Amino acid sequence: MQGDTRADILRRLSFIEGHLAGVRRMVEADKYCVDVLKQTYAVRRAIEKMEAIMLAGHLQTCVVDGIRQGRDAAVLAELGELYEMAGR
Amino acid sequence: MQGDTRADILRRLSFIEGHLAGVRRMVEADKYCVDVLKQTYAVRRAIEKMEAIMLAGHLQTCVVDGIRQGRDAAVLAELGELYEMAGR
Amino acid sequence: MQGDTRADILRRLSFIEGHLAGVRRMVEADKYCVDVLKQTYAVRRAIEKMEAIMLAGHLQTCVVDGIRQGRDAAVLAELGELYEMAGR
Amino acid sequence: MQGDTRADILRRLSFIEGHLAGVRRMVEADKYCVDVLKQTYAVRRAIEKMEAIMLAGHLQTCVVDGIRQGRDAAVLAELGELYEMAGR
Repeated sequence: MQGDTRADILRRLSFIEGHLAGVRRMVEADKYCVDVLKQTYAVRRAIEKMEAIMLAGHLQTCVVDGIRQGRDAAVLAELGELYEMAGR
Repeated sequence: MQGDTRADILRRLSFIEGHLAGVRRMVEADKYCVDVLKQTYAVRRAIEKMEAIMLAGHLQTCVVDGIRQGRDAAVLAELGELYEMAGR
Repeated sequence: MQGDTRADILRRLSFIEGHLAGVRRMVEADKYCVDVLKQTYAVRRAIEKMEAIMLAGHLQTCVVDGIRQGRDAAVLAELGELYEMAGR
Repeated sequence: MQGDTRADILRRLSFIEGHLAGVRRMVEADKYCVDVLKQTYAVRRAIEKMEAIMLAGHLQTCVVDGIRQGRDAAVLAELGELYEMAGR
């Protein structure tokens, strides 16, 4: 990962960890489960956003370099695998 | 949330928090972003599984009680809202 | 399904079928695959919207009636199954 | 799209159109909405599978060629847009 992407990802991870700690406090305090679910959905969206940024970075660096170096098959197989995993 | 559901959710939250801490260590150690992404996908799936358990508990308790007490409209509106949010 | 929900669903199905026929014509005319993909994403979103309407109708009728009649377990098991399948 | 990918996509489109026609007949015959939903979920999965094949073809041809020709920015911007749209 490039330096500024990594800094951004680490900032986002801190935010997500803080958000999850808040979810834990809600569960411990026995808050209404609908309100807890709304927070876990928000956490999930924050993770998805972070993934999109990591993936964009991956495309711009490793994928472009790999294709320039003729390693198309390896780079695209890996990308296909990621796509499959992302959708579940 | 009922006692055993809450205990299960708290266990799952601990696991997810530990997993995310592992993701942070990977990013700090500048691991290959494809490997990091595979771990964040796994975290996301673990959150989805936890949500499914919370939702099942919600259906079995609050939704059933609400409908028995004639609060169908309120209970179903809330459920519809959750459904929309879950899909994004 | 209640009458007006069914009429709405049939209208949406016609629209989706027409949209898919358009996708077929694009593929036959060898249009740029990125443009084809954008259309299939739109088709998928239209199906998801139609599903949300069917599900809301199901909750308001079969689920409420089932719970009033004491068939909670059956109704909720089915709902849980649908949720799992919706997410894949 | 390359010839064999296009033939595969057209076969899948025929299957999906047939499946949707079956959904329409179920709705017209007033089948149980849970059973209809299970079929629309299957249609949606078939569309997602078809999209994955189109995207793989796009990566192997247009993306690789674009990067080789130095059009990285355009090719990756388009790919990022597709990713965003796929997730909704």
